[in-house]
Amino acid sequence: MPPPVRSYVLWRDDEATHPDSIRAALAEFFSTFIFVFAAEGSIFALDKMYTDTGTTATSLIVIALASALSLSAAVASSIHVSGGHVNPAVTFGALVGGRISLVRATYYWIAQLLGAIVATLLLRLVTAGMRPLGLILASGEGELRGLLLEAVMTFALVYTFYATAVDPRRGSLGIIGPLAIGFVLGANILVGGPFDGASMNPARAFGPALVGWRWRHHWIYWLGPFIGGGLAGLIYEFMVIPTMEAPHRPLHQPLAPEDY
Amino acid sequence: MPPPVRSYVLWRDDEATHPDSIRAALAEFFSTFIFVFAAEGSIFALDKMYTDTGTTATSLIVIALASALSLSAAVASSIHVSGGHVNPAVTFGALVGGRISLVRATYYWIAQLLGAIVATLLLRLVTAGMRPLGLILASGEGELRGLLLEAVMTFALVYTFYATAVDPRRGSLGIIGPLAIGFVLGANILVGGPFDGASMNPARAFGPALVGWRWRHHWIYWLGPFIGGGLAGLIYEFMVIPTMEAPHRPLHQPLAPEDY
Amino acid sequence: MPPPVRSYVLWRDDEATHPDSIRAALAEFFSTFIFVFAAEGSIFALDKMYTDTGTTATSLIVIALASALSLSAAVASSIHVSGGHVNPAVTFGALVGGRISLVRATYYWIAQLLGAIVATLLLRLVTAGMRPLGLILASGEGELRGLLLEAVMTFALVYTFYATAVDPRRGSLGIIGPLAIGFVLGANILVGGPFDGASMNPARAFGPALVGWRWRHHWIYWLGPFIGGGLAGLIYEFMVIPTMEAPHRPLHQPLAPEDY
Amino acid sequence: MPPPVRSYVLWRDDEATHPDSIRAALAEFFSTFIFVFAAEGSIFALDKMYTDTGTTATSLIVIALASALSLSAAVASSIHVSGGHVNPAVTFGALVGGRISLVRATYYWIAQLLGAIVATLLLRLVTAGMRPLGLILASGEGELRGLLLEAVMTFALVYTFYATAVDPRRGSLGIIGPLAIGFVLGANILVGGPFDGASMNPARAFGPALVGWRWRHHWIYWLGPFIGGGLAGLIYEFMVIPTMEAPHRPLHQPLAPEDY
Repeated sequence: MPPPVRSYVLWRDDEATHPDSIRAALAEFFSTFIFVFAAEGSIFALDKMYTDTGTTATSLIVIALASALSLSAAVASSIHVSGGHVNPAVTFGALVGGRISLVRATYYWIAQLLGAIVATLLLRLVTAGMRPLGLILASGEGELRGLLLEAVMTFALVYTFYATAVDPRRGSLGIIGPLAIGFVLGANILVGGPFDGASMNPARAFGPALVGWRWRHHWIYWLGPFIGGGLAGLIYEFMVIPTMEAPHRPLHQPLAPEDY
Repeated sequence: MPPPVRSYVLWRDDEATHPDSIRAALAEFFSTFIFVFAAEGSIFALDKMYTDTGTTATSLIVIALASALSLSAAVASSIHVSGGHVNPAVTFGALVGGRISLVRATYYWIAQLLGAIVATLLLRLVTAGMRPLGLILASGEGELRGLLLEAVMTFALVYTFYATAVDPRRGSLGIIGPLAIGFVLGANILVGGPFDGASMNPARAFGPALVGWRWRHHWIYWLGPFIGGGLAGLIYEFMVIPTMEAPHRPLHQPLAPEDY
Repeated sequence: MPPPVRSYVLWRDDEATHPDSIRAALAEFFSTFIFVFAAEGSIFALDKMYTDTGTTATSLIVIALASALSLSAAVASSIHVSGGHVNPAVTFGALVGGRISLVRATYYWIAQLLGAIVATLLLRLVTAGMRPLGLILASGEGELRGLLLEAVMTFALVYTFYATAVDPRRGSLGIIGPLAIGFVLGANILVGGPFDGASMNPARAFGPALVGWRWRHHWIYWLGPFIGGGLAGLIYEFMVIPTMEAPHRPLHQPLAPEDY
Repeated sequence: MPPPVRSYVLWRDDEATHPDSIRAALAEFFSTFIFVFAAEGSIFALDKMYTDTGTTATSLIVIALASALSLSAAVASSIHVSGGHVNPAVTFGALVGGRISLVRATYYWIAQLLGAIVATLLLRLVTAGMRPLGLILASGEGELRGLLLEAVMTFALVYTFYATAVDPRRGSLGIIGPLAIGFVLGANILVGGPFDGASMNPARAFGPALVGWRWRHHWIYWLGPFIGGGLAGLIYEFMVIPTMEAPHRPLHQPLAPEDY
């Protein structure tokens, strides 16, 4: 068997209109909706309880738990349909690793951003118009350091995604992947929360930024995750996955029966 | 193979008296009992510790953890017997999606309500007659907004149920379903708790309402979850599950050996 | 196939000396050690941090998390060797359901109690002689109500054990069982903690009682769990498990290859 | 079939240069990086929020959750590549049990220490030079007692590792192992945190010690875990795993298809 070529597929005519692509985009939309509703909504809940919005260890736990639990559920809900990205940076990592075509990635990105926007709009509606806070750098935290922090944390997230939900050796039937991905997000929020809000997900940052119209430092929450996610995709795909032993599927499609 | 018809089955003579139906209803009874005992009981515990009953972030974590952990265990305990509903809104979503017959759904609803009532009665008994607080809207939260919030949160719950415990592609052997369902409940309680108590489950609202005889806003905790759960069932069943590829079982019976 | 007879086996000559019995008892010893070290140790940790020992919501979370996480790990560590009891009340439930012989149950009980004693002794040693607090009824909580509370909570625990780690239909390969069992324990501690300490496990109560020499109300933590666990075993075994369909193994031995 | 001999393999020529060894070391590097970044980073986050660094129950929960969640993710990310050690004491336990050769263990140790150092350096960079606190004994906690505590807690950790990720009977497909290992770490942090910081992992102690240049008591965090981990490896390998029934693989290599 010749070593499989990791070929990049930018465009496939059939993919743009195939029902599977639509279904996968739908799954990304709903899963990102579920995640952002809880991740951003927990900040609304803290706002409702306290007039003082300073971060305390208890509020950090609330945000980390809401984000981790909902991301695990959201990834579990889409992993068999779309691959369980729920995050533009994960999709970028899959694109850079050659696991997804550009057209499919574009579908995912649009679906993820729409899901985040609808979630934030609904949060605003049910809370009688509370303005979403969005993500900002803590005072004393420079932009470059914030960028690096987002990149490092997203690297950990996308590396975990690759290792537990893409690597053909994992044999986990879509169980440990959603858990590990939600867990590493929760752990990193407990680290990065007091410094830069710990987004690791451009869609999760974009929804509240748009609905609350707060764009300060917003570029950090795109560039950082894309750098970290892209790097994780490249490193895992080309250094950790063996070239010879496992069959390589050029497109990271939903798990098929023969994968089990 | 012709595309399977999603046929609604309202009544099956054999089902009403089949031992499997009785066993499934029993499983729903005990699982709902386990869940409501912990979800409502954690509020009793907070009441016991503090005279002040205002919601704080710490008490929110207590309630969310108790609810999430016990729901995961309760769903895991019934998923192979009854499908792991533990919630009238989930049963409604399964009914609307054509996965369960009306007679079986009715059995489930009765069992779930009885489980919730017995759990609350026992809580009252062991706490020397503390009156259950039940669920109420926070001050400043309008009824329509509460209704919408319950509908949105239950949508996320039932969507996750469908994606991880019904979708024939999931291949998870009943492991990730219970976890994801408990997790999304916990995450949403961290969002909706300070606004409307975050029920997402008419049985969980009904038990304490009956035993504590508090009916204010009670209709919200039925209508909201049924709207959200029904919508999730329809959307997942007819938009996300592919019509052609996977065999469709009209009744959502317990997992059978050939499903693995 | 005739319906399998649920036969009670009180004694099997070979079992008393078989290496598998010794190994299973060893596994119970170490797993109970791991569980009690964390469950009781978390109370030592709170004692070290605070001079005031009143229960707060935060300390309740600490105890519930330490107990739930360590029990899940302890059950996972022994489920393939001994069946993952880690609790005399679970062993009693398995005995009452006819899943284990009396001689094997006695081995387990001794191993569990020894594990709990060694864990508490080591806690005392590493903390320079802090006296374990053990479990007591909160002021205002009557003995009968405490007994009922322990029985109800242990019922939920052993019911979950049966449904997720014994039921032949579960198909979970020993994954969801440990998680669900730890989760329901954690949830119930968040309920019963402020009332009676929420033991649900005579070994967990006995170790600290012996080492700290505090026997007040101690009988409650034996009788309550045995009533609840025995009831759960009887109900699940004879009402929820179908008699005809699944092959019945009279002894609940470790999972064998043909069970997967 | 003759009983398999547990043979110790100190050196294999091919192993030192085999691509699989490099990949396994890489996986250990990145997984330890992910774990230490969150475990130590959560202390940085608490430092950022509070000027007072005394341990409270809430900060204990933050550290325990960050450590448990990230360790589960890190073990899940490497279990199919390197066996999921992420900890020099686990590697030592595997060496003592004859599951790994000395050359491979040395690769792992170097990779784990480098991962911990890079994680701490990045934490220092993104926080504008905050000095890592590292692990120290609480006042009033003697060195011998700290040593014993580390040994006991690491025993529980490595015992769980052996039971859920090495034991050939487990049949868990790499799912319950990562969860149980992270869970027992989290539970033990809730016990040992206020006494000695609860490391159970020499790499996790070494990174912050080197970057923050704090070496007081540092030997405890090496000797304790190695005693506990080695003991767990010996006990589990020679007392709990049956000699006859299961085939023994002398090297604990990544799970192969025939293991499932």
